[in-house]
Order: sequence, then structure tokens, then C-alpha cells
Amino acid sequence: MKKTSLLTFAFACALPIAAHAADSPSMDGPLTIAKQGSFFVGGREVKSDALSTVPLFGATGTITVDQMYVRYQIPMQPKDYSVVLIHGCCLTGKSWETTPDGRMGWDEYFLRRGYSICVVDQAWRGRSAASPVALNMVKTGKSAPDSLPAFTAAGHEVAWTVFRFGAEYPQVFDGMQFPLEAQEEFWKQMVPDWNYSMTPPVPTVKALSELSQRLGKTVLISHSQSGIFPFQTATISPKGIAGIVSIEPSTCPASNYDMAALKGVPVMVLFGDFVSKSEVWSKRLAGCRDFAAAAKTAGVEVEVVELPSVGIHGNSHMLMQDKNNLQVAAWLVGWLTAHVK
Amino acid sequence: MKKTSLLTFAFACALPIAAHAADSPSMDGPLTIAKQGSFFVGGREVKSDALSTVPLFGATGTITVDQMYVRYQIPMQPKDYSVVLIHGCCLTGKSWETTPDGRMGWDEYFLRRGYSICVVDQAWRGRSAASPVALNMVKTGKSAPDSLPAFTAAGHEVAWTVFRFGAEYPQVFDGMQFPLEAQEEFWKQMVPDWNYSMTPPVPTVKALSELSQRLGKTVLISHSQSGIFPFQTATISPKGIAGIVSIEPSTCPASNYDMAALKGVPVMVLFGDFVSKSEVWSKRLAGCRDFAAAAKTAGVEVEVVELPSVGIHGNSHMLMQDKNNLQVAAWLVGWLTAHVK
Repeated sequence: MKKTSLLTFAFACALPIAAHAADSPSMDGPLTIAKQGSFFVGGREVKSDALSTVPLFGATGTITVDQMYVRYQIPMQPKDYSVVLIHGCCLTGKSWETTPDGRMGWDEYFLRRGYSICVVDQAWRGRSAASPVALNMVKTGKSAPDSLPAFTAAGHEVAWTVFRFGAEYPQVFDGMQFPLEAQEEFWKQMVPDWNYSMTPPVPTVKALSELSQRLGKTVLISHSQSGIFPFQTATISPKGIAGIVSIEPSTCPASNYDMAALKGVPVMVLFGDFVSKSEVWSKRLAGCRDFAAAAKTAGVEVEVVELPSVGIHGNSHMLMQDKNNLQVAAWLVGWLTAHVK
Repeated sequence: MKKTSLLTFAFACALPIAAHAADSPSMDGPLTIAKQGSFFVGGREVKSDALSTVPLFGATGTITVDQMYVRYQIPMQPKDYSVVLIHGCCLTGKSWETTPDGRMGWDEYFLRRGYSICVVDQAWRGRSAASPVALNMVKTGKSAPDSLPAFTAAGHEVAWTVFRFGAEYPQVFDGMQFPLEAQEEFWKQMVPDWNYSMTPPVPTVKALSELSQRLGKTVLISHSQSGIFPFQTATISPKGIAGIVSIEPSTCPASNYDMAALKGVPVMVLFGDFVSKSEVWSKRLAGCRDFAAAAKTAGVEVEVVELPSVGIHGNSHMLMQDKNNLQVAAWLVGWLTAHVK
């Protein structure tokens, strides 16, 4: 009865057990964790007369915004540094969890490899509160319509190209490893994004600095839109930052970036496959190579890697969800082990 | 070194180990789970020319909305029914996780008691996508400002009264058990809410029906705003619904509700303390007692319980986070064990 129930539940969740190359017995089967939970970092109070247009609630009062939601799990024998997984544009922390086709996400992979993991929702996204004030000011005629903040969704068609599933929707690159058979589940991960209404650095960066300092020793693993955030975080303070992994950053630090912030912080900038087939990603990669050259000259330990150059092929922009996502993660664990002290 | 790291991490997270009355050895210490992950249920595609006002993205395309995010964990020897934890207004699934003062949430408590658990974010909230279309239509002058949807935040001051921390902000009821010393962390849980822009039943209800049917046998545990959702879900189909726990519902089913939907479904409507000191909650409780009387007449197995009547005192509206939250959960496990077949 109980066995049946477990199977029923697993089936209900439509999540077949991951068929990956287990590199230790603990990569499959039951998982024992020392502790798990969630909390927030950052945040500030806002007083407003435009919190609501619903009579039940009243318009006037205080809310808290800019905080960042953090879910964590600690393995039984954790390494002496944790990893923080930071999602990209129009997505949430879900990016790092179960893949659209039901395989293990990087959150659990790193946990099973002995890392304490933190998965965040950027400020103003997911479980991290946005403010309704600007919207309600317009709704009640107190502000002009064009004062509404940018609230940006990426359509499936645009995302298809940006995520390098193919040259353009609905074409597919030969050998591309994103599980397109589960694309409907993937599109459900995408949420509208308030970041384009903000002046950088966005509030997530300040929250990441608070988190890094509380953790004491952590590697910030960012993706796409958030690719630049660890570098901005290091500028606030290098405290707690043991390494930076910037996965397919939409931008790398500019030429005026103060490299002193990266002293003693190993940096990996990682790209997938098909970059040369994308004009936008080719430019971004070139920008990162320029940054890396300048950083090396300044004595920073930095590498820019395209996965095909290390024998891993077919990766899209969403490489943490690709069919070979754990192969990529395993390669990254190797890099962390070699470089993070 | 590793031991130190674990402690450092735990300290960083500011989450002291829960000092609760452990009712079995497995309620403390390491946790072994059979499987965990996340997925979505529900969802529909929307085509629009108002997805974005940011040139990088383009305004035209397809997005997916109305889906509901589900995080699940399955214990090693699960009971033959799961529980689904559904949060209330202006909150997310975080409601059920680590309490503001760092104690164990109901998600882990039920897991440790042998329940497969699902924690959801209501559609259009948290990790479940909203649509930006109505906002962008106004921003670009294609719709009038008053067409903007209700996007409602509850200020700390209003929430204080509704959550029955005291008669009015910042008064506190004698013996009230919400951990007010951690209220700053609690306010960070609150997010703006799109539900008041929707005609009931909100999309979450359809998603709950899909989830219940996929799970096969589950108890829907709702709170406040979502209190009515399990009853609405049962109206779509009773399939998969093994029980309903409605915690402090903002409304119970009306007199014209079709009680046939609840045939064979045990129902618990649960309230905390201080209800008689709140006009709004007194009315809501009275409405639930009227519903229960009608339901019993129709042969439904239903109870309405105020916690003080079973010897549990001091509970606020946020009873899953009160200092005695695990005492309440233990009482509820007792009820489930006795009534869910």
C-alpha cells in the first residue's frame, strides 16, 4: 500500500527518476540532509497611500520590498563553502530545480555532491515581493500612464532564440540538448520581470552581498541577466565571496570595473554551444573575453570557457536544464574543487 | 573544519534548531527523504502584442499563465495520502516553510510525520507567472488607466489586525503566540496579490483540481483567502480529494453550495484564538458554522473547531507560524489520522 502510494505520487508528479551517469552511490536514491529551510535577506520599508485599490485592505500603510527569498539545504558532510544559485531574466529559482522533463536539477546535484546550497528568487520576483505602488498611482489617476514601470515578459518565440534552442523559432540547432519535448513545462517557469524598470545595480545585488557575508564563504553561481551580479556584489564587499561562476552572462564587467574587488576570487565565465551561430551571444562572449584579458592583466584568476572546448557539446543557454545538465555540473564541480580555496 | 562550516552556515541563516516537543526521534536531526522536486500544474497560452515595452524583448508573442508552482518532498515511508499546503492572501508558499523566528514550518513537520507534501504558489503569485499584458496596454496608451487590474498589498498595519496579532496596530492580545520579535522577517513574506482582479473561482482552483487528480489521494489544506478553494475544487471534481482542512477561511461555502461534492470527504474548518475579539473574524466563523450545519444535514462529515476548545491557546490567524505551531500541527495530524480513510 505504502509502496504503491509512493509510486503513485511520483507518477502524479510526472517526474521519472533521473537516468544520469551517477558518479557516486549517493547520486541516486534516498537523500539525507542535515537541515533545510528558507529565509529572506535585505529589504526596506516603504510607506505609501497607494498600496491597494480594494476597499477591504485600505490604501495607506507600510510594506517591505527589495528583500530576496533564499531556500537552503545542507548535506550531512558539507564542504567548507556553499553555493548560491542565482537565476536569470524572466525566471525564478525554479530554474535550478527539477528540469522540465523531470530530471534532477542543479540544486539537488550540488547538494548530493556535498555542497550546502542556496536557491534564491531575485528581489521583486517569485517569492520576493514587488511593490504595487506605481501601478496603483496610475490606476487612481495620481500618475501618468507612461510612469508605469517596465514589466517585461519574454514570449516563447523571442526566448527560443535568446536561449539558443535554434537560430529562430521554431528551428532547432543540430544536436541541441534542451529537452524540447517538455517545452510546455518550461514555458510555465517564465514570469514577468521588473528589473528593466530599475537603475543598476538592482536590489538583488545588495541582498546577495548580505547573503555572502552571512554565509561567510560561498560561491555565487549566476546565469544570464544575473551574470553580472556577483561582480557587482564583490564591488560592495568581497567578504564571503569564495568564487564566482558566471554562466552565459548577458554582460561581463566593463573596462572601468575595479579589478581589486576580485583579488583572491577565482572566476569562471561559462558558455554553452552554438555561440558563434548567435550574433547577440557572439558579442556577449567577445565582451567577456575582453573583460577576462583585462582581469588577468590585473592579476585576477579568471577563465572563459565554451563547453565544446572541453568536450561537452550541444548546450543551450539553459544548460542547467539540458539533457546533459549533470555532465556540465560535474565538470563545474571539478573546476570548483581545483580553484576554490 | 566541516563541522564548523555547517554551524557557520546554520548561523548565517539565523535559523536556530527548533526547540519543539519532539513526538518521535525523527522530528529532530537529519532528515532522509525518498524524493523531492518541483513542477507546474495547469496553465494556458496567451498571445499578445503587449508583452513588453523593452525593445530588447519585443512586444509580440506567446506567454503561459494560470499555471501553479508545486514543490514536493516524499518521505521514506509515506502514508497513502499526501497533503497540499495552500497559502492565503498576499503571501506565497513560504507561509508553510521556516517560521519568521527560524523554527520548523509545517512543510517539514508533515514530511517528518510521514506525509508526502506539496507546497504551492497560487497562480499569478510567487513562482507562478502573472501576465504583464494589462499593465503594458495602459503604459502604451492602448487602454485606460482604470482598466489596470487590482494589485493589492496589505500593509503591516492592516495585516496586524486581520492576522489577529492584536485588536489594532500595534496592540497585542494577551498570550498571543505569533513570534512578533521576528515580525520584520514576517513582513518580508508578504507580496502583492492579483486575485482581487479576478472573477472567482481564481485559476488556482482549476490547478488544484488537476493536482488532486494527479496525486490520486490528497488532503487539501488551505488558509484564509484560499480557505474556500478546496470546496470549489471539489465542485469541479471530487477525484483525488481525500479530505479538506480549511484553516481560518475568509469565507466558507454559501447556502447554495452543492453538498454532493463533499460526499465521503471529511472536512475540518479550524480557527485559532481571539476570534470573538475580532468583528470580521466573528462573522466569518459564524458563516462557517452556518455552512457546517447545512453540510451535516446533507450528510457531510464536517467539524468547525476553535483551538481553545481543544485546549490550545493563543493562536493568531498565522497559526502555522505561531510559537506553538507544531502543537497545532500535531493536533491536526491526530484529526487526519482519525478521519481520512
